Amino acid sequence: MKIATFAGALRKGSVSKQLVLEANRFLEKRFGLAVDYIDLKEHPFPLYDTDIEQQDGIPSTIAELGTRIGAANALVIAAPEYNGGISSVLKALVDWLSRLQPSPLQGKFLLLVGASPSGSGGVVGLWHTRVPFEFLGVHVFPAMVAVPRSATAFDGAGALIDEKARGKLHQVLTDFVAHVENHHPLPTRIREAS
Amino acid sequence: MKIATFAGALRKGSVSKQLVLEANRFLEKRFGLAVDYIDLKEHPFPLYDTDIEQQDGIPSTIAELGTRIGAANALVIAAPEYNGGISSVLKALVDWLSRLQPSPLQGKFLLLVGASPSGSGGVVGLWHTRVPFEFLGVHVFPAMVAVPRSATAFDGAGALIDEKARGKLHQVLTDFVAHVENHHPLPTRIREAS
Amino acid sequence: MKIATFAGALRKGSVSKQLVLEANRFLEKRFGLAVDYIDLKEHPFPLYDTDIEQQDGIPSTIAELGTRIGAANALVIAAPEYNGGISSVLKALVDWLSRLQPSPLQGKFLLLVGASPSGSGGVVGLWHTRVPFEFLGVHVFPAMVAVPRSATAFDGAGALIDEKARGKLHQVLTDFVAHVENHHPLPTRIREAS
Amino acid sequence: MKIATFAGALRKGSVSKQLVLEANRFLEKRFGLAVDYIDLKEHPFPLYDTDIEQQDGIPSTIAELGTRIGAANALVIAAPEYNGGISSVLKALVDWLSRLQPSPLQGKFLLLVGASPSGSGGVVGLWHTRVPFEFLGVHVFPAMVAVPRSATAFDGAGALIDEKARGKLHQVLTDFVAHVENHHPLPTRIREAS
Repeated sequence: MKIATFAGALRKGSVSKQLVLEANRFLEKRFGLAVDYIDLKEHPFPLYDTDIEQQDGIPSTIAELGTRIGAANALVIAAPEYNGGISSVLKALVDWLSRLQPSPLQGKFLLLVGASPSGSGGVVGLWHTRVPFEFLGVHVFPAMVAVPRSATAFDGAGALIDEKARGKLHQVLTDFVAHVENHHPLPTRIREAS
Repeated sequence: MKIATFAGALRKGSVSKQLVLEANRFLEKRFGLAVDYIDLKEHPFPLYDTDIEQQDGIPSTIAELGTRIGAANALVIAAPEYNGGISSVLKALVDWLSRLQPSPLQGKFLLLVGASPSGSGGVVGLWHTRVPFEFLGVHVFPAMVAVPRSATAFDGAGALIDEKARGKLHQVLTDFVAHVENHHPLPTRIREAS
Repeated sequence: MKIATFAGALRKGSVSKQLVLEANRFLEKRFGLAVDYIDLKEHPFPLYDTDIEQQDGIPSTIAELGTRIGAANALVIAAPEYNGGISSVLKALVDWLSRLQPSPLQGKFLLLVGASPSGSGGVVGLWHTRVPFEFLGVHVFPAMVAVPRSATAFDGAGALIDEKARGKLHQVLTDFVAHVENHHPLPTRIREAS
Repeated sequence: MKIATFAGALRKGSVSKQLVLEANRFLEKRFGLAVDYIDLKEHPFPLYDTDIEQQDGIPSTIAELGTRIGAANALVIAAPEYNGGISSVLKALVDWLSRLQPSPLQGKFLLLVGASPSGSGGVVGLWHTRVPFEFLGVHVFPAMVAVPRSATAFDGAGALIDEKARGKLHQVLTDFVAHVENHHPLPTRIREAS
């Protein structure tokens, strides 16, 4: 089982990045998985614009991200809630990836997690973030993890120290890995075949 | 009543731009309104990134857009459906605007319209597009207009020639204008006061 | 300005009823409004079923509720979150009301509030509850109130004692009343004219 | 692989029932599956009301439906769109089922299909119908089937004669069966173990 993870926020040290790195540590330690962690800031891409695609083609960063994402069987994404919805970074990524043939997202398994300073943990945004992925044929895991009060949930080194949130994250990650591992064959690594 | 309009797609000649220009013509001709039409392509802004905001401040294009949007009492936006959701352009715009103080969106009236090549007219995307605007205090008009089969609904000059869609657009625009005009006082032109 | 209020839960003493009664007390005391409070339990109606409508007609309880709702300019509804969505009670009510001609909901103003034992206050359910009302032409106020940790937010007598939630409720009710009062003329009392 | 199917509308001869029966015929003929078809009208249950649960317990019809649904590995539901959302019948069913222990829905696979007289095929309703199922741990298949213009899509005998819709239904059912069959072990038949 190959897994790729990333955060839907760009800022260095964002809580979304802290959360996905916490998930990575658990996946590596508990399950011995080699996680391919992607920092979207290192692969800049523009807002989706059909003119760009028609004049210059799909950006090379998107092609690279498509290859890495396509090589994974499963994804874990930490999706920030911005104004009740998906981040523009994630939406632009999804819309660009949807232009690649064959599709790197089709048939993949995805777990969405999130953290926010509010009491809701950004759960409204998580529900909206599901939609474009499902639209593109991604099996989004029903359970999600929304970490509330992020300002105190993480320590200075970026570790998730809120016990309740930490337990929930570990449980859902465990359930997610078990679900994906029960699937045979795993989703074809479509992009590698191209 | 001051009204600003724009499309949530960047491509020159996109059906979203054709649709919003059709709405502009109707608003000007029928109601004598002076519409402030904004082409987002002429005001480029990046994906939302807190690092940019903290290092360079809010982009000057966003400040300009905030002033024009803030000066309007009502907005008409043609929102394309991309993969079942909001376009990354609109989402990035909303998220950047949400960083301005005072808020240029708070209390404004908004009508959402859309067009798509599909039979649904992109109505799933329209419903999702409501959310971040409502989150920021915008009164999104309940009725929306989704123009299906856009490839044949517009003629070569960009005029909406589908009679049913055209009638629906005119009716909903008329209802929207009547609703906003019944509101006294109109939402404060917050940005002009700053 | 005439206002009708109700809860979307049936249980006697439900937190949704406690919350809407709290709102009623504030509306009466602060604004001197005569609130028409409706207890849906006293007006039982079935799940929506076209066979019932065609064989027996629209239930008489629905016609009565339509008259009372139609006589109001504005509504405040406390909507519980059940499994991330709208309660079946509210959805059945909306679907039955949508069969009345003229529509008692069209053009009305609505504020949605909610309370739940969770940390999110049932905010995911509130967002989904907006949709069928907006579909039917209701102006749903953008701001909503989600009271978290309802088990301790109310006292034994049903008063909202959580200071933060109480302040938010009062502020949003005040904003809502001001918004509706700025609208002239108020939505026609459609049902009374029939 | 055991599969149960039903429609989210009660009316005899509703297009939702026609659609799910069309799906049943395909599943039986193409894959030799023994489908357990449930007509919800034959198992009446009330709007969800905590008072009923506390005074009389969970309705016996719900317990029976829970057993049949729990015995299936996968579900196909034809979900009508009512006012942009889920039908009250489906929502009441889901909310009642959520009170059973162990949960008959947890971990099941679900395909949602729908039909409507409109050009959108009720796709807005399908997207909202996903949510309470996903909330309860159901793996809702990303692809869905929305049959538009139902008045002419079915013949007098209830057969789906719109070629495009028929082809889409068969393809998505085939993809769904393949996906579920790749999962080993299939979701535990939780209710039978109790």
